[in-house]
Amino acid sequence: MNDISSGKLRGIVKLADAKGRFKMMAIDQRGSMVQALADVLNKEKADVQYEDVAALKTLITRALAPNATAVLTDPIYGYPYSIAEIPRDVALLLAYEESGYVSEGVSENERLSNPIENWTIATAQRAGADAIKLLAYYHPDASEATLRHQQAFVQHVGDECEKHDLPFLLELVSYALEGTTKSVAFARQKPALVIRSVEEFTAPRYKVDILKLEFPADLKYTSDYQNRRFYAGDSAYTLAEVKDICQRLDAASTLPWVILSAGVDIEEFIENVHLATEAGASGFLCGRAIWKDAVQYYPDTDAVNRFLADEATTNFTNANAAAENARPWFDHRQFGGAENVQIAKQSATWYRDY
Amino acid sequence: MNDISSGKLRGIVKLADAKGRFKMMAIDQRGSMVQALADVLNKEKADVQYEDVAALKTLITRALAPNATAVLTDPIYGYPYSIAEIPRDVALLLAYEESGYVSEGVSENERLSNPIENWTIATAQRAGADAIKLLAYYHPDASEATLRHQQAFVQHVGDECEKHDLPFLLELVSYALEGTTKSVAFARQKPALVIRSVEEFTAPRYKVDILKLEFPADLKYTSDYQNRRFYAGDSAYTLAEVKDICQRLDAASTLPWVILSAGVDIEEFIENVHLATEAGASGFLCGRAIWKDAVQYYPDTDAVNRFLADEATTNFTNANAAAENARPWFDHRQFGGAENVQIAKQSATWYRDY
Repeated sequence: MNDISSGKLRGIVKLADAKGRFKMMAIDQRGSMVQALADVLNKEKADVQYEDVAALKTLITRALAPNATAVLTDPIYGYPYSIAEIPRDVALLLAYEESGYVSEGVSENERLSNPIENWTIATAQRAGADAIKLLAYYHPDASEATLRHQQAFVQHVGDECEKHDLPFLLELVSYALEGTTKSVAFARQKPALVIRSVEEFTAPRYKVDILKLEFPADLKYTSDYQNRRFYAGDSAYTLAEVKDICQRLDAASTLPWVILSAGVDIEEFIENVHLATEAGASGFLCGRAIWKDAVQYYPDTDAVNRFLADEATTNFTNANAAAENARPWFDHRQFGGAENVQIAKQSATWYRDY
Repeated sequence: MNDISSGKLRGIVKLADAKGRFKMMAIDQRGSMVQALADVLNKEKADVQYEDVAALKTLITRALAPNATAVLTDPIYGYPYSIAEIPRDVALLLAYEESGYVSEGVSENERLSNPIENWTIATAQRAGADAIKLLAYYHPDASEATLRHQQAFVQHVGDECEKHDLPFLLELVSYALEGTTKSVAFARQKPALVIRSVEEFTAPRYKVDILKLEFPADLKYTSDYQNRRFYAGDSAYTLAEVKDICQRLDAASTLPWVILSAGVDIEEFIENVHLATEAGASGFLCGRAIWKDAVQYYPDTDAVNRFLADEATTNFTNANAAAENARPWFDHRQFGGAENVQIAKQSATWYRDY
């Protein structure tokens, strides 16, 4: 039997569909959405208005949340103007980290994550969060100072989620210490970066419940996809090798994991979902791959809504279909089947001991 | 515009169906269920085993929760063995009060409600409660000491629910200061008892969000029901008078209200739901009227399950149908329509101000 505290259990049940598969939507983008709006409105990033970001998030949440088992939003632009748009049967994930990263006191290629000022996990729970999401940038070969900072940050959130008995969903995003992530050289490094990061943060001291992971290879550099639109013109691996990488990732992940979209086009993302779930992923938490093209129509809200109702909804439907064979979270070896999930402290004195 | 804090809003949205109607199930009975099990098992009440109460609650919750928009359970026998039986899209209400009442320091006809020892609203929220339910016995002509005790208890729970931003559902149950509630004399008193209690606890200082009320008349003593099985052989009012009483209750309730079943038979309860929702009730929170006959089959779990799958499910379906014309909570004059529900502190600094 595998014990799980009842608050975390209830939260995870709500995040997934009735069969235990995560089909979650992310609309917690801040820096990247402000930049996208700056581009479309021909403005400097600093001149983008709060109201425009909040309004665009409201439109996207209203149109797409009904397709999701859970919606991840942020407490700054998202929650206050979008909470009423999340249907009763769609769970609420709230982001904990400040958007982006800083490099203060470390090399400018390294990335430190930080909390949103004045925003706590207690507050998120009061606001109705069913789970907490933390994005941590991570490169296992960064300096000791950077590693320690990121590890301590994750551990803090793990402790707070345990205290409030909320599921902790940790998103790990790798980056290049040299050069760019958009290169065949980085594509070659990526499998090891993703898998080594998973090895670190599945350690029990971090108290993570679900990992939100990058696809552990870059299909733009996969030789078998040379006839696809997303192929970048150079190969780092074959499809068979990519499948093997996914298997190795699943072997490393002692926790249920879902795949993120990192803003790739929908065609590539659907392929990611197929390959990841084939290897054992329990679903996805996807944002821009589904809705990013809506931004270009802003501030024409009719055009935004048309895109969301048509193309974005089709994208979501296709992503959900691709996740139909995902491994239910309770069938991960961490739990070993629904019948083996056991509520911690289950007894006549639970109400006192909990 | 009518402000509501976002945690309470999110909770209320989850308690109701997509159209704002409450079709909620109660399985938080403790004293009455232990007594029912004692009767069927031919035991003293004190000899009924914890495990039997918990097991029966698990069976009922598993079979019937899928019909409900929300399930009300208790943290002693209910939650630890039933939480995994509540579907992801069915909200969770947790009871705060100790079962029953005491009369220490007041007349033995008067009733004082008390909390469950070592059980807090913070704990309920951590366990995933979407709302808190408090049952308070109330007779507006009780002694000053009793009135003050009950009022202070309700106010305490209102303050705690505000602090944790959880919806506060207050159940008011009247009782007889002399004689029995099963009498035409009490039936005549009941309309005033229910309405006067509503007038007390809708005062803003109690911070109640939803009232769970007794039907404000007793259909067993209603002349127009002389040909019904539940008719008790004496009349306190006509049906037209009962309808007027329901209207007066709705006029008194400055908050959305739902009807409780108090263990009446299903035929009478369905009539209650029809009349209450016609007058403006927003639905029901019903326990025994739907499932009470399951108890008699215990410990034959197959027979319990057959009854739950057949008759109890039919009861629930009929109750849901009777509530189809309930007034959506957001159409109560407290809110004035979904378009007028406004999130408190909605602004760019919500995450700091909340």
